[in-house]
Amino acid sequence: MAGKLGILAGGGPLPGWLVESCRRQGREVFVLAFEGQTEPATVQGMEHAWIRLGAAASGLEILKQAGVADLVMAGPVLRPGLSELKPDLRTAKWLAQTGAGLLGDDGLLSGVVQRLEQEGFTVVGIDQLLGDLMVEARTYGKLKPDGMARADIARGIAVARRLGAEDVGQAVVVQQGLVLAVEALEGTDALLTRSGELRRDGPGGVLVKVMKPQQDSRADLPAIGTRTIAGARAARLRGIALEAGGTLIIDRAAVVDAADAAELFLVGVPIET
Amino acid sequence: MAGKLGILAGGGPLPGWLVESCRRQGREVFVLAFEGQTEPATVQGMEHAWIRLGAAASGLEILKQAGVADLVMAGPVLRPGLSELKPDLRTAKWLAQTGAGLLGDDGLLSGVVQRLEQEGFTVVGIDQLLGDLMVEARTYGKLKPDGMARADIARGIAVARRLGAEDVGQAVVVQQGLVLAVEALEGTDALLTRSGELRRDGPGGVLVKVMKPQQDSRADLPAIGTRTIAGARAARLRGIALEAGGTLIIDRAAVVDAADAAELFLVGVPIET
Repeated sequence: MAGKLGILAGGGPLPGWLVESCRRQGREVFVLAFEGQTEPATVQGMEHAWIRLGAAASGLEILKQAGVADLVMAGPVLRPGLSELKPDLRTAKWLAQTGAGLLGDDGLLSGVVQRLEQEGFTVVGIDQLLGDLMVEARTYGKLKPDGMARADIARGIAVARRLGAEDVGQAVVVQQGLVLAVEALEGTDALLTRSGELRRDGPGGVLVKVMKPQQDSRADLPAIGTRTIAGARAARLRGIALEAGGTLIIDRAAVVDAADAAELFLVGVPIET
Repeated sequence: MAGKLGILAGGGPLPGWLVESCRRQGREVFVLAFEGQTEPATVQGMEHAWIRLGAAASGLEILKQAGVADLVMAGPVLRPGLSELKPDLRTAKWLAQTGAGLLGDDGLLSGVVQRLEQEGFTVVGIDQLLGDLMVEARTYGKLKPDGMARADIARGIAVARRLGAEDVGQAVVVQQGLVLAVEALEGTDALLTRSGELRRDGPGGVLVKVMKPQQDSRADLPAIGTRTIAGARAARLRGIALEAGGTLIIDRAAVVDAADAAELFLVGVPIET
């Protein structure tokens, strides 16, 4: 087992899942949490520090002093408003060096990975740490998509990839060929809630999640967990399709059990590029 | 003034605006309203009939018998679930002839325009009826977008057109380069509400609406009215950008006044194709 792991903890449930997994494995971690983004429960009982995103460069010093060599990015770090960001001098310089401009989000993330490595950290993908996270091209659980669901999946992939190419969102919900809802900043939970309100009669829809085509797979990848299954069930979807090799299932056994219990199919779909 | 106008009344506020305008102009209309889609207030006091979308072909007979020669499509007609659609034999045949498959929405609409003309109707664009509706490439009202807003507009156009090419949505909200929210089926009011919840500190965002690149301009065009201005104000946006030649402003004088009062810019932007 490697040394102390630094976790750059973004929003959503993924960082918490990772922290919990490290705790179970007995791996030492240091959580760098971002004000207004990281869920507070993520850091409970763990060695951690809270910083403003605008002071991220100082966070790296904190990590070094804590003895961290390996870093992992988990969960989306959303760019706040410019006035809120207020980068300190050091972070502003750092941002300038990563080439992070005003536009886009993954542009920022991919640059960040490179810069972290220049700072002497080893940046690892979350799937290297947790194992069995990365979605494979296969059916999980007991159910399979039928012909209509497969058509919905194909349409969802096409739309989600177009969006991803514009560095927006990574998820859509399609029902009977109709795109019910498209994710931008609201997150998948809100996407699913809205999809439940917009659903049509008849066979339910499909949640499709893909990675952005240009995304560094060590940057934050789209992930699902048991919470996603609960949301999909509440929205009366029929299933979930995930890009094989580009998305993660957290706590797979529990997720597959929950999907079976909810009568949702769960498939990994290869995407030709 | 031409004879009795048939209005194929979809959802949202546009059909009501059109009906009200015809009433003021003293033009005779017959409103064909779709169950579960048209706002009930639209038909009040007007000659009208309600039909299921699955019985749309019979609706055309109703229009002919009512002496309608000119038809206009106003407001989105959303494809319901297949079980809800339950097309009658005649409508099923009609749908098959328009080449409306399972996928897409405007595929349906553009086919419908052609078929309506084959049925002997003259299909007119709503802008031909109301005049001064079509957005021009200019600034409306007192305010102009600054550099950051112009960058947000450019990003919004790029994203909205990608989506439109997939026959999804026509509107996005962008703030400081960040795409806050993307419209699919929920409509612009819900998009604006969500954008208000997702907004960042600092300079507010921009609502961008475009037509779908492949859209027949006589099919339902994206439109804004005073309700849109109220929603944009509540979401604390800075302005609204509309595709010149492809979107509509309903009740322009009132909209421009409302935009000025809300300190929102309102611009028509040409899109190069």
